[in-house]
Amino acid sequence: MIELSLDDFLALSESEKLPFLKDYGIFYAQQFSRQDLDDYNILADRCRTLFKSRDGAQFMSGLLSNRFALNFFVQPSSRTFLSFSAAQAILGMKRMSLRDIKISSMSKGESLADSIRTFLSYVDLVVMRHHGEDAAVLAFWIAMKSHRRLEVNGTNRPIPIISGGSGTKQHPTQSLLDIYTLSKSFEEIGGIDGKKIMLVGDLKRGRTVRSLSYLMKNYRDVTLLFAAPPQYQMEEDILVFLDENNISYHMLNSIEEGIGDADAIYMTRIQDEWDDQVTDRHPEAHKDFIFRRAYLNKMKSTACLLHPLPKRDEIEVEVDYADDPRVVYWRQERNGMWMRVALIAKLFGCDQKILT
Amino acid sequence: MIELSLDDFLALSESEKLPFLKDYGIFYAQQFSRQDLDDYNILADRCRTLFKSRDGAQFMSGLLSNRFALNFFVQPSSRTFLSFSAAQAILGMKRMSLRDIKISSMSKGESLADSIRTFLSYVDLVVMRHHGEDAAVLAFWIAMKSHRRLEVNGTNRPIPIISGGSGTKQHPTQSLLDIYTLSKSFEEIGGIDGKKIMLVGDLKRGRTVRSLSYLMKNYRDVTLLFAAPPQYQMEEDILVFLDENNISYHMLNSIEEGIGDADAIYMTRIQDEWDDQVTDRHPEAHKDFIFRRAYLNKMKSTACLLHPLPKRDEIEVEVDYADDPRVVYWRQERNGMWMRVALIAKLFGCDQKILT
Amino acid sequence: MIELSLDDFLALSESEKLPFLKDYGIFYAQQFSRQDLDDYNILADRCRTLFKSRDGAQFMSGLLSNRFALNFFVQPSSRTFLSFSAAQAILGMKRMSLRDIKISSMSKGESLADSIRTFLSYVDLVVMRHHGEDAAVLAFWIAMKSHRRLEVNGTNRPIPIISGGSGTKQHPTQSLLDIYTLSKSFEEIGGIDGKKIMLVGDLKRGRTVRSLSYLMKNYRDVTLLFAAPPQYQMEEDILVFLDENNISYHMLNSIEEGIGDADAIYMTRIQDEWDDQVTDRHPEAHKDFIFRRAYLNKMKSTACLLHPLPKRDEIEVEVDYADDPRVVYWRQERNGMWMRVALIAKLFGCDQKILT
Repeated sequence: MIELSLDDFLALSESEKLPFLKDYGIFYAQQFSRQDLDDYNILADRCRTLFKSRDGAQFMSGLLSNRFALNFFVQPSSRTFLSFSAAQAILGMKRMSLRDIKISSMSKGESLADSIRTFLSYVDLVVMRHHGEDAAVLAFWIAMKSHRRLEVNGTNRPIPIISGGSGTKQHPTQSLLDIYTLSKSFEEIGGIDGKKIMLVGDLKRGRTVRSLSYLMKNYRDVTLLFAAPPQYQMEEDILVFLDENNISYHMLNSIEEGIGDADAIYMTRIQDEWDDQVTDRHPEAHKDFIFRRAYLNKMKSTACLLHPLPKRDEIEVEVDYADDPRVVYWRQERNGMWMRVALIAKLFGCDQKILT
Repeated sequence: MIELSLDDFLALSESEKLPFLKDYGIFYAQQFSRQDLDDYNILADRCRTLFKSRDGAQFMSGLLSNRFALNFFVQPSSRTFLSFSAAQAILGMKRMSLRDIKISSMSKGESLADSIRTFLSYVDLVVMRHHGEDAAVLAFWIAMKSHRRLEVNGTNRPIPIISGGSGTKQHPTQSLLDIYTLSKSFEEIGGIDGKKIMLVGDLKRGRTVRSLSYLMKNYRDVTLLFAAPPQYQMEEDILVFLDENNISYHMLNSIEEGIGDADAIYMTRIQDEWDDQVTDRHPEAHKDFIFRRAYLNKMKSTACLLHPLPKRDEIEVEVDYADDPRVVYWRQERNGMWMRVALIAKLFGCDQKILT
Repeated sequence: MIELSLDDFLALSESEKLPFLKDYGIFYAQQFSRQDLDDYNILADRCRTLFKSRDGAQFMSGLLSNRFALNFFVQPSSRTFLSFSAAQAILGMKRMSLRDIKISSMSKGESLADSIRTFLSYVDLVVMRHHGEDAAVLAFWIAMKSHRRLEVNGTNRPIPIISGGSGTKQHPTQSLLDIYTLSKSFEEIGGIDGKKIMLVGDLKRGRTVRSLSYLMKNYRDVTLLFAAPPQYQMEEDILVFLDENNISYHMLNSIEEGIGDADAIYMTRIQDEWDDQVTDRHPEAHKDFIFRRAYLNKMKSTACLLHPLPKRDEIEVEVDYADDPRVVYWRQERNGMWMRVALIAKLFGCDQKILT
């Protein structure tokens, strides 16, 4: 149980909320230690291998076959939605979705809090994407207050909530799949420690790059290169966090400035959906921050090119079909599904069954 | 088969339609006898218990694993939709949904009748919520005329239809879960017989309170207290029904008038979705018909507070988290899922398998 | 793999694309030989019979239980969508759907090509309905370029794509179910060879009648009767195809002109969704091209009346409930589900398991 009122709880900072959140769900990248990240990577790999055989797939389908998942996504999503849905299906969960507030009781004036409490009456897991900055932690508070508890390996726990992106600030499961992708890419060159990672594009409102920056505290000697037009540069709160954790970073004025040096290039799209006036015409990426086909020749042979996707014009379309093993963003998508299998398996305490 | 033409059938009154409807689906609260209600309560309890064990859950998942359900909900819904979907999944049904006329062939000018006949070509159960007063019984007529029949325990029957709320008049499955909730709340004080039940709010257009009133004929010595502003008072047809069935009722001008006396308080929301002009601003509940935190002190110790939900401001938010066992509306939601499991199990003739 | 660039591939004619498409998906009616059609009919029949027994249904549910299907339908659909979803469920597939571009990442400016490549990261089958003339073959090209391959009976193949209707030109799975329905209707009178088939209504934009016309090359001595108002008559490209393949056809000015002669009457709706200005009012069918109740008396006793549905006023509503075995359009719907089971089973190489 939680003693704080909802207002008092929401008034806490992210780091003040951490002790309450425990392992009751996935809300912030800061919840994860190096050990957690390493464990998740191993678990995701194991799930991927296991599912390849028919028997393994059958085994996994039986793990959560009497559990229900709701995917409550009221912001547009293709990848996160589909990969969570697929991950739940792999674990045999019974799935439901709600993707439009207009068809829900919220259209009759029900509060978000009441809607979430309703979901918790029927399902055993809520994955949510919502424009509200605090939507996922609000759901956490409701889950703590709700009477329903899940029995997991002999103990009772509140219904878990997973943020699939909440407001502009965080997208924690994306950052875990990014870590998984980086780790796999650097498998033969010593992992993420000591690497230079260039983040490109709309760093200001890119919740994926913010969450990823937080996770860098778990690795030794990482250098972040922030390549963005001035109006889209990384926000001050992240820079303070990096300073406090002795993570070095540099501001760059173009991709070219870092292309020969970076071990990973993480591209992002201009997040104009947060602009006041969104039209059918999207802003063009700034020319110095477009990844061009020719850059593949300037990249290190061991480097990798990531993108959380969707993308627009910030990567030249020729790169998509370049058939270059360093272009990993399509594999990154599928890594996301396996990481989400791992996250859900862990929340429901079946990680040990999978590993043994 | 049914000999009447569609127009002739629709022209019948609800009570004239009853002999045709038999147990071919769920349309009106009047279909149920006391024995039916008691049986459903027992069946719902049994399903709930059974699903708690892994073996029981497996058993239930196998019951209807080669049957298809379509949830055709073209009015907003969270609870009814999710609880039906969960109930179907518990019984192992393969589920489909259609929640928006715009993505259906009705957007190309197909009639509702043709659409329903199409659904009946593919699925074995249609649950529908529709704004049309007669939509569910129209679907019944189509199901009778359609050639497809289901074999259930050795006999052929038309594809069952369940109304999940049709027009302003009835919401029969809600009234069954309300009965289930009341029965459980009154378990140690003799059940529903002899109790005083206060219905509060928009009684005129609240299809749940109308359906619930019909069911009261199955209980002895129940008194209904109708607490509503004059413009939202219970409709004449229900009062006539109550008179005919010797069910006593009183009109109240506030919650306070009945709070000390009532064994159950059933709150409802102003159903402004039926108003001609619905805006984003919803009308406020009248101050005398808002359930306040302080009323918990005036309620009988054995009383219970229900709401079909969604709610807005007619219950003070402090009541939601009062942690008072008499506040049962969240449990009422989950009861709804189990009642819907019971209803579907009965329609498909697997009630005996569950009970033994 | 495919060496052609996307633009070069799309620039090919339908018949030039055929050698690339192989059996990698279902795009055009021209992909099918007489042997294919006969095989599919047998397979569909076998699936239908098998599913009737509980053991057979269990067997079928196990065939593709670790495969994922995505139904990506961004044009309205009831029948095609539901029957594909049901077909996938019969084969035990895990299903996902995306029915509205607004909730997808395309609303953030993602290209159709990127969206499809994303789907291919998660699922093993994409069924798509799209307004774009080339959408399904675009998806084919992406599937060829994508790294993910499916292992089917020991060989690797690209993720299959099925067109559920692409632009105004083709609706190949509809034409297969039409063939299946015609074959069953003519079972005792020698099959489709030698029959007169009247196509009625909007032949210009009816993708079902276009696809059906292509398939006639597989039958001997078929005569097509095109009954349509001048502005909706069959397009020149189809007439050229028929001439080249020595299939005879005649233009008729009314249904009555052919009613006594036709072995099958295939009705269609005016496809006003392709008009520039679509309103809530749909154009009325022309009086000479409405199938009237009285025509049942003029039809051959062995003839059959089909419609791909949805319909509006081009068939009098009395015909729907005439209880005449020659009115087969409702059975045609369910045939569609079984044909889609057969198509998917074949794509995933489990046809032999079903047949033995």
